[in-house]
Amino acid sequence: MVYSKVNKPIIRVDAYEKVIGKAKFAADLYFPNMLYGKVLRSKYPYARIVKIDIEKALTCPGVEAVITADDIPNNEFGVIVQNQQVLARQQVLYIGDGIAVVAAETKEAAAKALGLIKVEYEELPGIFDPEEAAKKGAPLVHSELENNQVVHHRLRKGDTERGFAQAEVILEREYTTQFVEHAYIEPESLVAVPYEHNTLVTIYGSIQNPFSCRNAVASVLKVPLNKVRIIQNHMGGSFGGKDEVMSSMAARAALLALKTNRPVKMVNTRDESILESYKRHPYKMKYKVGATKEGKLAAMEIKCLADSGAYACQTPFVTWRSVVQATGPYELPNVKTDTYGYYTNNVYTGAMRGYGSPQIIFAQESLMDELAEELKMTPMELRLKNIYHNNSITASGQKLDNHQVSLEEVINKAVEASNYKDKYREYSKPQSGDKKRGIGMAISFRGCSLGAEATDAAGAIVAIQRDGSILISCGLAENGEGLKTVFTQIAAEELGVDIRRINYMEVDTSVSPESGATVASRSTILGGNAVKNAAHQLKETLAEIVAAEFKIKTNNLDFKNENIYEKNKNQKIISFDEAITLANQQGIFLSVYGWYKAPDISWDEENGQGRPYFTYVYGCQIAEVEVDTATGQIEVLKMTAAHDVGRAINPACLKGQIYGGVMMGLGYGIMEEVETANGYIKNTNFDEYLIPTVKDMPEIIPVIVENPDPHGPYGAKSIGEPTLELGAPAIANAVAQATGKRIRHLPLNLERVLLGHSLSKGGTKK
Amino acid sequence: MVYSKVNKPIIRVDAYEKVIGKAKFAADLYFPNMLYGKVLRSKYPYARIVKIDIEKALTCPGVEAVITADDIPNNEFGVIVQNQQVLARQQVLYIGDGIAVVAAETKEAAAKALGLIKVEYEELPGIFDPEEAAKKGAPLVHSELENNQVVHHRLRKGDTERGFAQAEVILEREYTTQFVEHAYIEPESLVAVPYEHNTLVTIYGSIQNPFSCRNAVASVLKVPLNKVRIIQNHMGGSFGGKDEVMSSMAARAALLALKTNRPVKMVNTRDESILESYKRHPYKMKYKVGATKEGKLAAMEIKCLADSGAYACQTPFVTWRSVVQATGPYELPNVKTDTYGYYTNNVYTGAMRGYGSPQIIFAQESLMDELAEELKMTPMELRLKNIYHNNSITASGQKLDNHQVSLEEVINKAVEASNYKDKYREYSKPQSGDKKRGIGMAISFRGCSLGAEATDAAGAIVAIQRDGSILISCGLAENGEGLKTVFTQIAAEELGVDIRRINYMEVDTSVSPESGATVASRSTILGGNAVKNAAHQLKETLAEIVAAEFKIKTNNLDFKNENIYEKNKNQKIISFDEAITLANQQGIFLSVYGWYKAPDISWDEENGQGRPYFTYVYGCQIAEVEVDTATGQIEVLKMTAAHDVGRAINPACLKGQIYGGVMMGLGYGIMEEVETANGYIKNTNFDEYLIPTVKDMPEIIPVIVENPDPHGPYGAKSIGEPTLELGAPAIANAVAQATGKRIRHLPLNLERVLLGHSLSKGGTKK
Repeated sequence: MVYSKVNKPIIRVDAYEKVIGKAKFAADLYFPNMLYGKVLRSKYPYARIVKIDIEKALTCPGVEAVITADDIPNNEFGVIVQNQQVLARQQVLYIGDGIAVVAAETKEAAAKALGLIKVEYEELPGIFDPEEAAKKGAPLVHSELENNQVVHHRLRKGDTERGFAQAEVILEREYTTQFVEHAYIEPESLVAVPYEHNTLVTIYGSIQNPFSCRNAVASVLKVPLNKVRIIQNHMGGSFGGKDEVMSSMAARAALLALKTNRPVKMVNTRDESILESYKRHPYKMKYKVGATKEGKLAAMEIKCLADSGAYACQTPFVTWRSVVQATGPYELPNVKTDTYGYYTNNVYTGAMRGYGSPQIIFAQESLMDELAEELKMTPMELRLKNIYHNNSITASGQKLDNHQVSLEEVINKAVEASNYKDKYREYSKPQSGDKKRGIGMAISFRGCSLGAEATDAAGAIVAIQRDGSILISCGLAENGEGLKTVFTQIAAEELGVDIRRINYMEVDTSVSPESGATVASRSTILGGNAVKNAAHQLKETLAEIVAAEFKIKTNNLDFKNENIYEKNKNQKIISFDEAITLANQQGIFLSVYGWYKAPDISWDEENGQGRPYFTYVYGCQIAEVEVDTATGQIEVLKMTAAHDVGRAINPACLKGQIYGGVMMGLGYGIMEEVETANGYIKNTNFDEYLIPTVKDMPEIIPVIVENPDPHGPYGAKSIGEPTLELGAPAIANAVAQATGKRIRHLPLNLERVLLGHSLSKGGTKK
Repeated sequence: MVYSKVNKPIIRVDAYEKVIGKAKFAADLYFPNMLYGKVLRSKYPYARIVKIDIEKALTCPGVEAVITADDIPNNEFGVIVQNQQVLARQQVLYIGDGIAVVAAETKEAAAKALGLIKVEYEELPGIFDPEEAAKKGAPLVHSELENNQVVHHRLRKGDTERGFAQAEVILEREYTTQFVEHAYIEPESLVAVPYEHNTLVTIYGSIQNPFSCRNAVASVLKVPLNKVRIIQNHMGGSFGGKDEVMSSMAARAALLALKTNRPVKMVNTRDESILESYKRHPYKMKYKVGATKEGKLAAMEIKCLADSGAYACQTPFVTWRSVVQATGPYELPNVKTDTYGYYTNNVYTGAMRGYGSPQIIFAQESLMDELAEELKMTPMELRLKNIYHNNSITASGQKLDNHQVSLEEVINKAVEASNYKDKYREYSKPQSGDKKRGIGMAISFRGCSLGAEATDAAGAIVAIQRDGSILISCGLAENGEGLKTVFTQIAAEELGVDIRRINYMEVDTSVSPESGATVASRSTILGGNAVKNAAHQLKETLAEIVAAEFKIKTNNLDFKNENIYEKNKNQKIISFDEAITLANQQGIFLSVYGWYKAPDISWDEENGQGRPYFTYVYGCQIAEVEVDTATGQIEVLKMTAAHDVGRAINPACLKGQIYGGVMMGLGYGIMEEVETANGYIKNTNFDEYLIPTVKDMPEIIPVIVENPDPHGPYGAKSIGEPTLELGAPAIANAVAQATGKRIRHLPLNLERVLLGHSLSKGGTKK
């Protein structure tokens, strides 16, 4: 199939406005008569609120309103469990909990007023370790609950006892991962405007999931959804991060706006952002694997504990993806996996690019290398013996029979592009000097889109205007990844018209079809299909009109190059513009809703069996590193990232995803960590919380593999998250080769490299 | 049929926000960094522009931009003929023509800058009478044209020569009408905001027809339609008036906004509004009618000249409605009608409530009374002998066979409600004293919607949100008449839900389906059908889901009272909310576009034969007056207005239309007139331009007649314009009875009443 608009690296449709500086971000927005909102946050990670005295703050010049939990119609919100406080009422549960919000004429006045609010606390002994939280009789984070467990997912396949009995080598290891920050460059920002255009409150902001935000705000205000309108602005990064924290900010701003009847702007500083916003879940993971001497995997037992922090947030779904994917893409007859989430008084945790996979892939892929070493095989050899192929059965009992299971191809292409085999041999030899090199690989399979725990569908509007120009709108939100560009290409391809005809609208919850959240690397496959469906309906309508007018069969018409052709004669019949005029003259309507519902899937929560995802993507990343064994410093020299994406709608944007994902994986692997102590956060700014800069960037070799998926638009699947989940384990494996030491804890910072930290005992041979 | 939501006088859905003062009108809008725009208008009605010097204005403090025609990508716009100047380039054609626009930090600075612009004119001898303009060799208003004719519509039926030869009585009369102002209480206002939400320019304003405005602005800027966005604000009246004048203002504001990259607000003063805005067409009408002694009409010959002023604007379509309806609702075997529009250097004329009918109805209904007098019959007697009934053939040759032709019923109901017969007899007797009373009637038929000169269709969005709340959007605009309320009632009726579930969105050209203009009393019949269609689609989707779930046939389901019932058992199956949840769980999409295309109609421009409208409404108004023959003052005591509306969706809103229309007809009849002299306007404010106040209001008796139309939603047709077109002739006929003098010129002001003005000769008996 030859495409003219998709599968092309066209320039992003939003490039011009971003480069030229016309793109407005939420902090750029000003409304007349606007107030500034500021939040008073907790002094303690866990405390009872005895009294809040706002009287003095209210008399502070410029202060227009002070709101506490008592002023809130419904103080609890949450996508899965409604237990997150908009403002703390009786207790603060973590250090980022808000206690009061102030609206004032200036930021300075608002900040001054915060200092005048007197809060009397009774500090309580918090719980900061999910293992402690899991213990019977542990103090309760949420006193209304029976225990601290947020969720427990189970997966049972075969008989692990028998499996381990048959295994010739058994390895048990423990791995841990850290809190990390999304580290979007633009902190949380929004403006709430009361009573604008028939809406009770309109919120303009840097909001990843406008519909989730709308649902939360309406629920907090106790008003119908059609009274709240969220309009997404340009986003300065999100990565799963601007969801619940934005819902909370939006609800607070809306309350202030309605109380004062004036627009209210809220913009977090970096410190406020790091203190309040949710993080990636730290995991404690116990892996036990059994294999034959020949390296055939026999059984795996996995137990993962996720720290949910103070609120449930996305923990139930994050740990669900972990339970599905915990074994990695390896055929295993016997599996027993348990994933848990526990409340603590740490900062709460939620969605972050990867969503429960980076943790388990770090463990599972480190484990595979450890097992290979035990078996005296190369890491690649062991993997190739066990990976999924067409018709493999996953740990969940799903037969992979509806798409090309391309793992072997992906591995081979990564291996070739990175010269892995030669390098592996070379770096296995003794190396002189302090600087040692190593090469490591990690592979994964990843379920596309939401999976079986949610209804999975998306909608789009394609509206052809009277002059043939086109407006597109979709409920899925551009978060910087290139969604607008990809959707524009799909509509242009389907209608055979130029990209420049199309104007892509911002997400507006009163306009765009609700399409679920922009998460789970689902936009291209779900939203892309919805756009394609809409454009296809329009093409059919136009084809009927043209066919009737020119007495040609509709299936003999071809839409391309801004014209409509008679296919069998390859002869132009009419221009696209003329066809639009014809339709208008006949009173034919050319705006449509497109809709795509993902194929049916299933899940048995009792034993973790079913068809959790309707399709999967496959990836392999290979890291080449140089470790300074004197200082502990790791230099990542090169990352090769091979990903089967089904079809690259825009190869340039796709590479952008790979570059960004590799960078994020590198940060996760060797430097990033939100350091907590008894619930307090120690590094609340980028001076101490380190993220990779351009100086840390390795050479990156993106390898795009295309096996069109039957469900994807033009075969396209996912790329956003797979790019990030493989870096840390690939680097860890490379470091292990370089240093001969296995580090089982992220990040692989200087101290750990120097100590060559090791927790678990070695393998057990029968 | 029993309805629960339609056919009910529910409170307007926008009542609360309007009463409480939260409804924002365009003048209430402020954007940060906003500039104020002001227009320099012409000094002369007709002149060549020799030179424009803006240098001094540009240096005026606070001035950010000055724009003249030279800065405009495409200076000409127009819905029918593109010959209206955004700013005058070489010539000014009327006194309201703009020459330059200024944007400045304050209104005062902008006004000051206007005074610093030096324009050198060469005054030209203008033409101010359409009869003069029609003469061969007359100076040309538009020098690029061959003559001053804007349009000439013809209608030929039968053989008028033979008709008149057979007639026993022939009457020839001339009637004239005046320029009148729309007199909306809110003058023209808008704000243009550059580069907001992916749009080149967004315009918020008091704009009757947002899509026409968008089309004009895009054409002026030479950009695609999807780069311009118009969002309609609450309207403080329009009556056909806020169309081209707003397009012009919007284009000017957009140019300033793009030049300065700042929002630009423009608000006309009343003087500016009256100077620049277009008026109702003054008509000169020659009527010749022939009848038998028994009062059977035999032939009619009509010639109408409309003064188009400087631009074509809506003249071609206004005079078309005149040509279709010129004979009134009377069976006539022989008709010859010619309507003309001519350019002059007067203020231009365009759409105004009635749209070419109030003029000809004044003539035709005055004529009928004159003929009745001639024949010694009562006006009612003569009318009843000649009016349309079912299956009558109109002057256009259209057989009225697809709806109930209820003219006789309407007349009888008006006669009864006004006690016409007794009063007529009473006032026919000699009256003593200066104060004389009279009663007069006027009747009409009126084609609904646009008619055969345009594609006639409308669209609507009905979007059910996740919680069952509903958003509605339509391209037709609320202009104060109650459209939002009527459409909300229709959606609620169709879905069997409460009105309060629904939030009706403002018209936004990037969102709402383009539905043609909000004109021609077409909103309820066209837009109402589109909303009904959308709601019906949703009902069918929900019915399928519920039917499948509960194993009931879809046609056995009834949606009412917020629930879904099994019809034959009259038993509740599921609540509407639960059905929505069910649909969401199944990933079924609940937003739809509704569309309604009017039935096919036709028109032969050569002889004025065809089916110009797909249906008609019928009205009769009866005026009772007391004339002070000493002062010339007319007091209208009572107006009875009977209108067949098909079905009253909201009888309260409908009565509002009648009250307003009667008031406007009264103003047209006895006091309103834009006085012009050689192209200058003499009365540019409401101190001298008189509109009726509450003190002028008569007792009004609305009589709603309902004969459901097969094409209307629940049978509904039109009411907006019919209410206004009958007042002036009914009053004129009543005044004639009271005074014994016939006034053939509107308005019937003090002078004319005192003079008892009479132009034409009496009837000719053979």
